[in-house]
Amino acid sequence: MEETFVPFQGIKNDIDGRLTCYKQDWTGGFRAGFRILAPTTYIFFASAIPVISFGEQLDRNTEGALTAVQTLASTAICGIIHSIIGGQPLLILGVAEPTVLMYTFMYNFAKQRPELGHNLFLAWSGWVCVWTAALLFLLAILGACSIINRFTRVAGELFGLLIAMLFMQQAIRGLVDEFRIPERADLKSIEFIPSWRFANGMFALVLSFGLLLTGLKSRKARSWRYGSGWIRSLIADYGVPLMVLVWTAVSYAPASSVPKGIPRRLFSPNPWSPGAYQNWTVVKDMLDVPVLFIFGAFVPATMIAVLYYFDHSVASQLAQQKEFNLRKPSSFHYDLLLLGFLTLLCGLLGIPPSNGVIPQSPMHTKSLATLKHQLLRNRLVQTARESMRMNSSLGQLYGNMQEAYQQMQTPLFHQAPSDRGLKELKESTVQLASSMGNFDAPVDESVFDVEKEIDDLLPVEVKEQRVSNLLQSCMVGGCVAAMPFLKLIPTSVLWGYFAFMAIESLPGNQFWERILLLFTAPSRRFKVLEDYHATFVETVPFKTIATFTLFQTSYLLICFGLTWVPIAGLLFPLMIMLLVPVRQYILPKFFKGVHLQDLDAAEYEETPAIPFNYPQEGEFGARSSVPDAGEVLDEVITRSRGEIRRTSSSRVTSTTATPTRDVKNLQSPRLSLKAYSPRINELRVMHSPRSGAREPFSPSGPSSLGK
Amino acid sequence: MEETFVPFQGIKNDIDGRLTCYKQDWTGGFRAGFRILAPTTYIFFASAIPVISFGEQLDRNTEGALTAVQTLASTAICGIIHSIIGGQPLLILGVAEPTVLMYTFMYNFAKQRPELGHNLFLAWSGWVCVWTAALLFLLAILGACSIINRFTRVAGELFGLLIAMLFMQQAIRGLVDEFRIPERADLKSIEFIPSWRFANGMFALVLSFGLLLTGLKSRKARSWRYGSGWIRSLIADYGVPLMVLVWTAVSYAPASSVPKGIPRRLFSPNPWSPGAYQNWTVVKDMLDVPVLFIFGAFVPATMIAVLYYFDHSVASQLAQQKEFNLRKPSSFHYDLLLLGFLTLLCGLLGIPPSNGVIPQSPMHTKSLATLKHQLLRNRLVQTARESMRMNSSLGQLYGNMQEAYQQMQTPLFHQAPSDRGLKELKESTVQLASSMGNFDAPVDESVFDVEKEIDDLLPVEVKEQRVSNLLQSCMVGGCVAAMPFLKLIPTSVLWGYFAFMAIESLPGNQFWERILLLFTAPSRRFKVLEDYHATFVETVPFKTIATFTLFQTSYLLICFGLTWVPIAGLLFPLMIMLLVPVRQYILPKFFKGVHLQDLDAAEYEETPAIPFNYPQEGEFGARSSVPDAGEVLDEVITRSRGEIRRTSSSRVTSTTATPTRDVKNLQSPRLSLKAYSPRINELRVMHSPRSGAREPFSPSGPSSLGK
Repeated sequence: MEETFVPFQGIKNDIDGRLTCYKQDWTGGFRAGFRILAPTTYIFFASAIPVISFGEQLDRNTEGALTAVQTLASTAICGIIHSIIGGQPLLILGVAEPTVLMYTFMYNFAKQRPELGHNLFLAWSGWVCVWTAALLFLLAILGACSIINRFTRVAGELFGLLIAMLFMQQAIRGLVDEFRIPERADLKSIEFIPSWRFANGMFALVLSFGLLLTGLKSRKARSWRYGSGWIRSLIADYGVPLMVLVWTAVSYAPASSVPKGIPRRLFSPNPWSPGAYQNWTVVKDMLDVPVLFIFGAFVPATMIAVLYYFDHSVASQLAQQKEFNLRKPSSFHYDLLLLGFLTLLCGLLGIPPSNGVIPQSPMHTKSLATLKHQLLRNRLVQTARESMRMNSSLGQLYGNMQEAYQQMQTPLFHQAPSDRGLKELKESTVQLASSMGNFDAPVDESVFDVEKEIDDLLPVEVKEQRVSNLLQSCMVGGCVAAMPFLKLIPTSVLWGYFAFMAIESLPGNQFWERILLLFTAPSRRFKVLEDYHATFVETVPFKTIATFTLFQTSYLLICFGLTWVPIAGLLFPLMIMLLVPVRQYILPKFFKGVHLQDLDAAEYEETPAIPFNYPQEGEFGARSSVPDAGEVLDEVITRSRGEIRRTSSSRVTSTTATPTRDVKNLQSPRLSLKAYSPRINELRVMHSPRSGAREPFSPSGPSSLGK
Repeated sequence: MEETFVPFQGIKNDIDGRLTCYKQDWTGGFRAGFRILAPTTYIFFASAIPVISFGEQLDRNTEGALTAVQTLASTAICGIIHSIIGGQPLLILGVAEPTVLMYTFMYNFAKQRPELGHNLFLAWSGWVCVWTAALLFLLAILGACSIINRFTRVAGELFGLLIAMLFMQQAIRGLVDEFRIPERADLKSIEFIPSWRFANGMFALVLSFGLLLTGLKSRKARSWRYGSGWIRSLIADYGVPLMVLVWTAVSYAPASSVPKGIPRRLFSPNPWSPGAYQNWTVVKDMLDVPVLFIFGAFVPATMIAVLYYFDHSVASQLAQQKEFNLRKPSSFHYDLLLLGFLTLLCGLLGIPPSNGVIPQSPMHTKSLATLKHQLLRNRLVQTARESMRMNSSLGQLYGNMQEAYQQMQTPLFHQAPSDRGLKELKESTVQLASSMGNFDAPVDESVFDVEKEIDDLLPVEVKEQRVSNLLQSCMVGGCVAAMPFLKLIPTSVLWGYFAFMAIESLPGNQFWERILLLFTAPSRRFKVLEDYHATFVETVPFKTIATFTLFQTSYLLICFGLTWVPIAGLLFPLMIMLLVPVRQYILPKFFKGVHLQDLDAAEYEETPAIPFNYPQEGEFGARSSVPDAGEVLDEVITRSRGEIRRTSSSRVTSTTATPTRDVKNLQSPRLSLKAYSPRINELRVMHSPRSGAREPFSPSGPSSLGK
């Protein structure tokens, strides 16, 4: 994305870019078949549960003017509209914590003014939304999102970690509150005597830790050793929703021996109860607001506009990180414009507006990467097996696989063709084939382990489409109707889920990985390289990594501290935006340019990745179910980064021997012995008979493979 | 051990064997320095906690005639005597569950007889002990333990798993009881109203799962990535006791808001309270028992004798499994004789007798294997580093290491010299040295990674000595005095500890590993081979493994069911002894001999392992602390088996290329690709410059290394 401040230019570029792939956004989604339900359910829970909880918070803070019904409605309406006519469909919209804080502040202000009071609060906040929308239009038209390029990894990841901390804080606070008497509670109720309160708190600990631990375990189910493939796959895809059900069921186990309020459950009015829908007609009250307050609404509007501009863009950016190798264009300007309209709509409907949320948006992309991996894998494995059945040679086999891979690429007509992923497949084909001696002989699985080879070759790709976002938004909307069922969920399960979300958002965050690196024993640092494939560990001195990380951590803690300051806390996005000039002008004075580039690559210093372009697309998802996607998928969802693929591809494609010293640093000491172990020679013996001759291998390395 | 039924012959052999190494049993222990405290504390907790809990059970069942004070006293007295004059010092003695069941049965009998009653119960049980002792003498003298050889892995591991199930059952039962009103409780106490009972139960769940999960985590601390080496080592060594302290502290956190009885804590009289010591003078009441009952005591005595004969021998056998590569001789007959004396002593003192316990005894050996590994490793690493400082060549380096290794071997003069472990070291030296091109050039760590090489070469060895057993017995004795402190521990922490012990006893149990294998997806079965190095996975067809395991599981479930039958339950050892003829005469009819040999090697069909013999010993434990013992140690303690070493040594020492097909089965598919990756060639390039020439490697394999 180029930096352009010509009015409307950014919006026009975005619309042009997204229109070319608009049809594919739908067809691609539907072709994925029932498998699309896995990311959909995953994100639905991640989206709905915080929104319900924020709704409860708003309910308490605004004395019932806004409830979970309104937050769910806003999330659903904005989500549905965004998924259909929005730019970037990977972006998830929802009512977020900052909105709740802002509305609380506004309510407290309105309540004290006799001209407004409780009755005109929603009308006044409607005016705030009008002003906010106007400011967002202005920002979008003038191309303010262009500077999103200047938000480097440092800023985005710091924000991501801050959100994770806030989620974790909410989880802990929620758990502590389970031991206390809630506000607005009937103090004479039996469940608030000390013994039952203590029992409720302990029960809450059991339920929330139960959900957290089983939820985290279930996400790793693909690499479990036990159970058949489809069970493991099912648990990994739907484990978290399942665990919410299981622990809700557990919460009813002692029902006969505890009073009705133990454990505490969600508290929210049903949408059909009187008073729950009075806000929908708020637009006719808006003219009753005194003129002074109509203009005064501009003040909170500026704050909300800055907040939304920042939140929305960063959420969108984190959902489109380079490591995901996205093919379709971004749409920052147009999405900000649309956000303006959505804010206006919500204001007029008297519901709090939604904006792009973290960590749900990156979680969405990650889960779609898993989906795409499954689809690609199934298709290629199927192709390879069919070729083998037809006694193809290795050459033909890879030819077929390449064809299948091409067919699965997203067609984007307006861009130059590129075949990065394909090239890898091809180069490794040739190398592997020649290393096996005979390119033309028929192959079977004893020589060529289909599933493993394919796992090693597949790049990270994302199933970019609109169906999952639309479906999850509709499901959030369905929650309004399903309120009586939602009220069965114990609040403690919610707190466990908050902690789960905080933890799930950490892997893949390089800032977090660097913090962990600081606590890693020196002798084990090479392991970080093994696990995260973080290139900076090799290239940047540890002291520099440590200094950089400490600086970032202090900055994070300052931001976190700011959120505790009543009103100033709302301006913490400004603190994070301040990171842009800090990164650009101050950090280069303390760190070497090359190190900074490795720790925090600035996009404006690099060439953009060129997306794929292939004329046809046909994904055959849901056709064959390959049970053993296993660990590879876990890697994709938990720590998939561009680096993984880069590492593995360089392993296959490098044609010159790497200098001794670098490799030495790269390898764990264990490898150095393995290189001499007879096992490798045995393996070579094992394969060579197929080539008919036991040719010696030259230590000059891969060059001999390409001959 | 040969089968000999000549009276006294077995005892004489045992005494002769153990006497030769008696002095070394002490010197070796003391030379290990403070590190001996790690296994000591570990076993002390594993020994004391169940004994306290069984004491409480006995307290309830015998209406206070016997309490935790008596069970602790018996465990301490028997443990101290056994560790000093016993045969096999790896064997841990303690009051076990079967003893508790037997005494409960005896109490119920005595209470109903007006001639005995509560008052003469201890005197009568003294007579039972007299008879039991007589029977044990008889069994020991006649060489009954000779048939312990016929107890194959099948029987021992089935018994081990049964004990694990009983421990787990106790944990679950204890937790469930936390929700109920305990027996002998004051019903009017505030802590027994429904709300506090529920609160107590939930608190118990938190405490016991907290202890279980953190305890299990802490045992794996050595392979953690974070924290410095000595902290990780400390946590791994003392994590479980530490966690008992931590969770006890946590149990006091809400002390101000809960009544005194929440959570429930250990209930036991202080040893100095009146009535707690009346049983010590029971011997003078013994003549008051009517003659009829003196002879009637023979009936329970036979049951106890059979039970002890079996328990004691199997516990001893499991502590001396082949995989541990023990050097010192066994002592089944003499230990059974000593057990007779100990039973007599306990009977006359009016305390329940102790016998060899599972899983503590094998846990003891495992923890001593970890200790020995640390000691050997530190010494060899030190030697290697010193040699490098003195610019030794690789040849000299290994010469020095061999010398150091020899010095650390246990001297057993009466046996033929052997040098299995040493040979491995030597063979691999020569191979490694020649593969590095120059045997005589000085080496440094960039070429030769000391710690890794040594980890790969070290065999599993056990620090066989008497100090840890003596110390832990003394500490158990100290518990009697420390009763006021022990009473601070919540019972729920105990239940968590029971579950911890059950789980800790599973790894290394091949029966358990085979059960897991049944639930493993077919495509992942090769992983079992990777993790457990279980050779049978390669050699025995899966169907045969499944049939064999299902048979064993049914047998286990029958035995477990039997323990639920009131009196017959005491005879479950007979069921397990029945396995001996079943294994010898019936199983061979259903399974091929070669498969049976792989699944359940019968010792009487094999040649015994020859122990080491070296003239000098000098272990320099606690001298240098090497922080990165890490995963290797974890392997040693959790699943170290002979197989690991066999596998790794065959890797280094095999001099002929293994037939293609076998290696293929052995390897995971992933390896097949790796063999062709440029990385390995790069590594070769990396090392070859030292040899001056880039000679091609012949694929005919390891033979080229030995040239």
